[in-house]
Amino acid sequence: MKVPGWTDVLEAHNRIAGWVHRTPVLTCRAIDRIAGCEVLFKCENFQKAGAFKFRGATNAVFAMDNDSALKGVATHSSGNHAAALALAASNRGIRAHIVMPETAPPVKKKAVSGYGADITFCAPTLESREKTLEEVLARTGATIVHPYNNFDVICGQATAVKELIEEAGRPDVVIVPVGGGGLLSGTAIAAKNMSGRCRVIAAEPENADDAFRSFKTGVLQPALPPDTVADGLLTSLGQLTFNIMMEYVDDVICASEKEIISAMRLVWERMKIVIEPSSAVPLAVLTGNRELFAGKRVGIILTGGNADLDNLPF
Amino acid sequence: MKVPGWTDVLEAHNRIAGWVHRTPVLTCRAIDRIAGCEVLFKCENFQKAGAFKFRGATNAVFAMDNDSALKGVATHSSGNHAAALALAASNRGIRAHIVMPETAPPVKKKAVSGYGADITFCAPTLESREKTLEEVLARTGATIVHPYNNFDVICGQATAVKELIEEAGRPDVVIVPVGGGGLLSGTAIAAKNMSGRCRVIAAEPENADDAFRSFKTGVLQPALPPDTVADGLLTSLGQLTFNIMMEYVDDVICASEKEIISAMRLVWERMKIVIEPSSAVPLAVLTGNRELFAGKRVGIILTGGNADLDNLPF
Repeated sequence: MKVPGWTDVLEAHNRIAGWVHRTPVLTCRAIDRIAGCEVLFKCENFQKAGAFKFRGATNAVFAMDNDSALKGVATHSSGNHAAALALAASNRGIRAHIVMPETAPPVKKKAVSGYGADITFCAPTLESREKTLEEVLARTGATIVHPYNNFDVICGQATAVKELIEEAGRPDVVIVPVGGGGLLSGTAIAAKNMSGRCRVIAAEPENADDAFRSFKTGVLQPALPPDTVADGLLTSLGQLTFNIMMEYVDDVICASEKEIISAMRLVWERMKIVIEPSSAVPLAVLTGNRELFAGKRVGIILTGGNADLDNLPF
Repeated sequence: MKVPGWTDVLEAHNRIAGWVHRTPVLTCRAIDRIAGCEVLFKCENFQKAGAFKFRGATNAVFAMDNDSALKGVATHSSGNHAAALALAASNRGIRAHIVMPETAPPVKKKAVSGYGADITFCAPTLESREKTLEEVLARTGATIVHPYNNFDVICGQATAVKELIEEAGRPDVVIVPVGGGGLLSGTAIAAKNMSGRCRVIAAEPENADDAFRSFKTGVLQPALPPDTVADGLLTSLGQLTFNIMMEYVDDVICASEKEIISAMRLVWERMKIVIEPSSAVPLAVLTGNRELFAGKRVGIILTGGNADLDNLPF
C-alpha cells in the first residue's frame, strides 16, 4: 500500500480548502497552569459535521474522477465518518450510500439523512455491516471510502495539524487520539515533514489499547472487545495506518477512563467548548504524564464535538 | 443618577481593553436556517471569569482613584459578578471583599477564593447579605461595586456590543438578556450611539418578568419571587437601569422555560460551545418570535459560560 507523502498532503489541502472550515487554534491559561506546559488546541469540534473526519471524507470525495463519482460513494459507519461522507458527497452533488446498524442512535441517523445520504440499515454486527455494504456496492457501483485505511482520507486528516503549525508555529510535541489511525497517520506525516524535531504521540484509551500493543510489539494486534467512553476510538488499526504508525510515530501512551472523563470536563469547564469524549484522550495523556511534557509547546487536536448531551459521562 | 453617554463608553473601553478578552463573534448556518435570519453571536462565555460581568467589574475597579482603591472593593453576590470583581481587583492588586451566602455552590466559592478575594459568608437571605456587606464596608472602608446599578459597571458592559458592531458591522436588532439591567443598559447606550436605527430588545424569562412588567407599565415593578433555570437573571432592575431601559430600549420580550432550555441545547449541539442558561434567553426569544426578525441581522450577546455541569437542565 502506498504511503502518502508531503506532496499528497499539500494537494489534499488545496483540494479541500474551499470546503472545510479553517478551525481556530485556542489556548487556555488555566489548562496551561494545570498541565505545566503550553497547549495549542486545534478545534476540529468546530469543523463541519462536527469532527475532523470531514477533512478526509472531502478529500476522498473530491479526489475521485468524474465517472466514478457519478456512481457515488459508500461506507459502513454509525459515527462521524458517516455524517462527514454524507456531507462531502452532498457538496460534490453525488450520492452517498451509508450502511448503519439499525441500533444506531436516532440523532446519528438524523444527521446522516439530513445531509441527504441513502441509509441502508443492517444488524449491529461487523459481519452484517460488511455483507450489507457489499450488496450496496454491487447494486450501485459506488466507490467505498474506508474511514481510515485509505490514502486520500489520511491525506485529508493531515491538514488539521498542518493548519495548526501554520497558525501557531512549531510545537515540540503533537498528541492525537488513535482509533483506526487515520488522523494519527496523517498528523505524523505532516508534522514530521513540517518539523523533523516535532515528536508525535498517539493517545489511546487503556480499554481499547490495540494501537499501544501493536506499537510495543511491532506486530499489528487485533482489538480485544473495546469498552471505553471514547466511542470514536473503538475501531482498530488497519494495515496502512499501522505501517505509517511504525514509521513515523514516536510513542503510544494510554489513559484511563477516569482520566479521559476528567480531561473532557476540564475542557468544557475551562474553555467553554463542547468536545466529545474521544477528543479528551490527548489531554488525559498529557495531564497524566506531566513530566514528559513540562515546559514544552504541545499541539493537541480536539477531534470532534458530537457529544451525546443525554448521556454525558460526568 | 447620571446616565452614561457615548464618551463614557469610549473611556471605559480604553480603560479595560488591556485586561479583557476581545471575544470572538461567531455565526452558525444551521441556527441561521432555524431562526430564519442572520445571527451574530458575541461570545462572552469565553470572557475571563466566564462572563461579560468582567467588563463592568474591570471598569469599575480601574476607574477608582488610588486612595479609594487601596481600601479595596466589596459586593454581595453568589454569581458571576463576585468572580469578576475578585479577578478585576486582583489585576489591580487591591482587595476584594465578597459577601456570599453560605449556601452558594462550592464551585462558585472556589472560583472567588481562587482569584484571591476575601469571602465573608452570610445567611442566604437578602437581609443578611446587605447587613453583612454593611459590616464589611464599615470594617474595611472598601468601595461597594454594585453588580448593575452602577455607572462604571454599565459603561463596561456596553463594550461588548461595541466590539460586536466593530467586528461584524451594524445589526438591525440586538437582543440581550435582562436581569438587573446592567448589560441591557450598556448595550442600549452603545448600540443606539453607533447605529440609531438598531433596535434593542431585552429578553427575559417569563418566570422572572419584572423588567417586562416595568417596561409595559412604565413603573419600576418589584420582582415577584423568580423561579427560572436562567439563574443569572434572578435579580430585578435598579432605578438607574430602569431609567435607561425606558429611554433607550425598544421592547422587552419573554421566553418560557422550555424555550430557554431548548435554545441552550441548540447552541451546545450546533455551535459546540458551552453557555449558561441565562445566555440562551435571547435566542429563545428569537426562535419563539421568528416573524419579528425574519431576514434581519440580529446581534446576540452570549453572556456567560458558567454552566453547572452537574445540573444541566436537559
